[in-house]
Amino acid sequence: MQTARSERPAFRAKRTGGVPQEGAAAGTLGLEEEYRRLFGAESRIARLPSGGVDRMALTEGDHRQRSFFAKELGRAGATVRVDQVGNIFGLFAWVPDAPYVLTGSHLDSQPNGGVFDGAYGVAAALACCKELDAKVRSGALVPERNVAVVDWTNEEGARFEPSVMGSSVFAGRLSAGTARAAVDGDGVSLGDELDRWGWAGNDSGPWACAYAELHVEQGTRLHDAGIDLGVVVGNWGAVKMRVEVTGEQSHTGTTPMERRHDALYGAALVVCAVRELADAFEGAELRTSVTRLSAAPSSPNVVASRCSMHVELRAEDAASAQAAAQNLWGMFVGIERKAKVRIEMKDVSVRDSMEFWKPGLELAERAAEGLGLSSMRLKAQCGHDAIALNGLVPTILLFAPSETPAAHAPDELTSERDQENGVRALERVLETLVAEGA
Amino acid sequence: MQTARSERPAFRAKRTGGVPQEGAAAGTLGLEEEYRRLFGAESRIARLPSGGVDRMALTEGDHRQRSFFAKELGRAGATVRVDQVGNIFGLFAWVPDAPYVLTGSHLDSQPNGGVFDGAYGVAAALACCKELDAKVRSGALVPERNVAVVDWTNEEGARFEPSVMGSSVFAGRLSAGTARAAVDGDGVSLGDELDRWGWAGNDSGPWACAYAELHVEQGTRLHDAGIDLGVVVGNWGAVKMRVEVTGEQSHTGTTPMERRHDALYGAALVVCAVRELADAFEGAELRTSVTRLSAAPSSPNVVASRCSMHVELRAEDAASAQAAAQNLWGMFVGIERKAKVRIEMKDVSVRDSMEFWKPGLELAERAAEGLGLSSMRLKAQCGHDAIALNGLVPTILLFAPSETPAAHAPDELTSERDQENGVRALERVLETLVAEGA
Repeated sequence: MQTARSERPAFRAKRTGGVPQEGAAAGTLGLEEEYRRLFGAESRIARLPSGGVDRMALTEGDHRQRSFFAKELGRAGATVRVDQVGNIFGLFAWVPDAPYVLTGSHLDSQPNGGVFDGAYGVAAALACCKELDAKVRSGALVPERNVAVVDWTNEEGARFEPSVMGSSVFAGRLSAGTARAAVDGDGVSLGDELDRWGWAGNDSGPWACAYAELHVEQGTRLHDAGIDLGVVVGNWGAVKMRVEVTGEQSHTGTTPMERRHDALYGAALVVCAVRELADAFEGAELRTSVTRLSAAPSSPNVVASRCSMHVELRAEDAASAQAAAQNLWGMFVGIERKAKVRIEMKDVSVRDSMEFWKPGLELAERAAEGLGLSSMRLKAQCGHDAIALNGLVPTILLFAPSETPAAHAPDELTSERDQENGVRALERVLETLVAEGA
Repeated sequence: MQTARSERPAFRAKRTGGVPQEGAAAGTLGLEEEYRRLFGAESRIARLPSGGVDRMALTEGDHRQRSFFAKELGRAGATVRVDQVGNIFGLFAWVPDAPYVLTGSHLDSQPNGGVFDGAYGVAAALACCKELDAKVRSGALVPERNVAVVDWTNEEGARFEPSVMGSSVFAGRLSAGTARAAVDGDGVSLGDELDRWGWAGNDSGPWACAYAELHVEQGTRLHDAGIDLGVVVGNWGAVKMRVEVTGEQSHTGTTPMERRHDALYGAALVVCAVRELADAFEGAELRTSVTRLSAAPSSPNVVASRCSMHVELRAEDAASAQAAAQNLWGMFVGIERKAKVRIEMKDVSVRDSMEFWKPGLELAERAAEGLGLSSMRLKAQCGHDAIALNGLVPTILLFAPSETPAAHAPDELTSERDQENGVRALERVLETLVAEGA
């Protein structure tokens, strides 16, 4: 199939940045302009004074963003489908009974997150689909496949765990019931929030034959190397878990130190151990983190009896992350003795390190080359919806360069030039997939 | 005055445990029975399945407890006064223009706190005042002073900081405006909660000539020594502060370890340093604690940028606690470098180690002796309303033995015998103060 594809002219329309395209329907904007319009509008929703955004899954900000997206799908003439977990699909159907090339990303954000993370890929995907639709309607593109754009619910996992939730349900890795039952820190379930905002649908997603996603890198490997486009060849592995520390509630004034069972002291020793594990790990680069630490009771003069925290161990290969988890388990024994507490690992999950679809790498590289863009293969160091889809369907993940190392933070930055190069590359990739199948 | 007092017969009525007293008004219960009735009723309010109680200041549980207390004051014929910060006084006025011997404690609790902490002293004080009132009315006691019972607002400081709030306002150590402006973790102010529950009064407190408080020890020094009653000779010193750690929000997956400014790692190093400070401190016993740790943002895959925690350093003399705070400050420099964060100490407050009123110690010891009880002088290791009052008026603080080391926890325990011995000793102390002045 790969050979067959390379024998055909890959792209049928030439274009220049920022100028409305030949073949576009009268009165519509060109690819880059439409992208800028969509991304500009998205970026103004739930914007914070910090420059970041606060659109955690199924909050009001996310609801407004979803509403904007659904309205734009309707304006574009797409058929809107919403599934049980709130994934929103916009279908452009040209070829009866043919499957869909799926493209998109996520509109939810981290608390005080960056404007690019996720929303960039959704704006790009919708602009590309509209461009392809115009080409099909004008006869400039003869499709073998249909195309659909998607906003995956709760990619971030910032409010409801686990992350990449909507795409994992679509890929059959997680049941819709489990996803709907996930609760936030206040005990509110995703299912209730979907119902409340009206995003719990009954539709099934489209029959997908391929998935392509464009995302910002969230690191500076591309920028440092002066490269225009990243082609993701695989993803890092990760072990994630909840760690619970149990001590004994007592008085901070009257309880002698040797009688304390201080859960917060135990938790602090865990935080330090997780960090030192990364600093001392041999054979592979290990990235570790402790987040979401909570301690109870939370009173100035009460020794805490229970602490809970989220621990992540990441490495290029999942086996290293799993070896690190084993080491950590060993360190817990000493901490239990030192702080006189009990430590438990719960909800341990492993993200495998996987390779991406090889023909897709070449397809993406040819698309970049055709646009005069340099490209580089690299691994994704964190979770993306494309990683959940990878394995279910042929999957392509493209990265636009980030200029700053900031990620999951308001000062993310991708230049306008790099944003638009990414959009153009995605459109070429989608055009090939639509024209030739996958 | 002390000499004059010791020349007079200290107690005019003999009594036996659990039996209604001679001299009590017809139809009323004896001292111990009335105490048991009051404390039993108090202990059923906002009780938890753990056996503890949840009556943090100005929550519904505290409101119900206050309402019960105010109703009982009315039934007892006391004049009820409520001041600006919700301190509830019940005045038994017998001698026009004479000042009041004040007695009481606090009805608020820690989250999942013990039933004895505070509520014991209020029930005891009210039972004693009713007993004295009956004696005065029957002519068995000729008063030189009046008596008043008090529930001090927010002794615990569990919801609103600082602790010993109501008594500190009464003692002029804290302004009512500052107290009312204190906010809980949800940003709700004490003033708003006082208004909401109807506990913001306009009355001034009574003119106090002495203060006597009965509390459980919250430690086992008395129990271990087989002593019936503790007479508090002084209090430990303490340095309390808020410590804030500032780092930088970033992505737990894509940010290399060496680029992180992890506020939670910095906070964990602070927790460990505070603990190690106690373990290694020379020259005095030091008790240290870190509580109320919060980290933001709280998302599984975001490195925290801000942490805040409450730190306490306690020692028998305040100078040792202050020396420890200096040591800690020095340790912060190394932590800032190691975790690449900034650490600030805020709202530093010092509780001086003070001595209690010497004639009061002797008065309490004579009261115990007269009842056939053993007594022991000891220091209070934590805060009490009596410590806020000490210095303003002659102050006596009595401890009933705790059988378990548990404190600020549901499994506090004082035996019925020890509870009632404490009540009887308090009544004798109050009777002397009322009869002879202070």
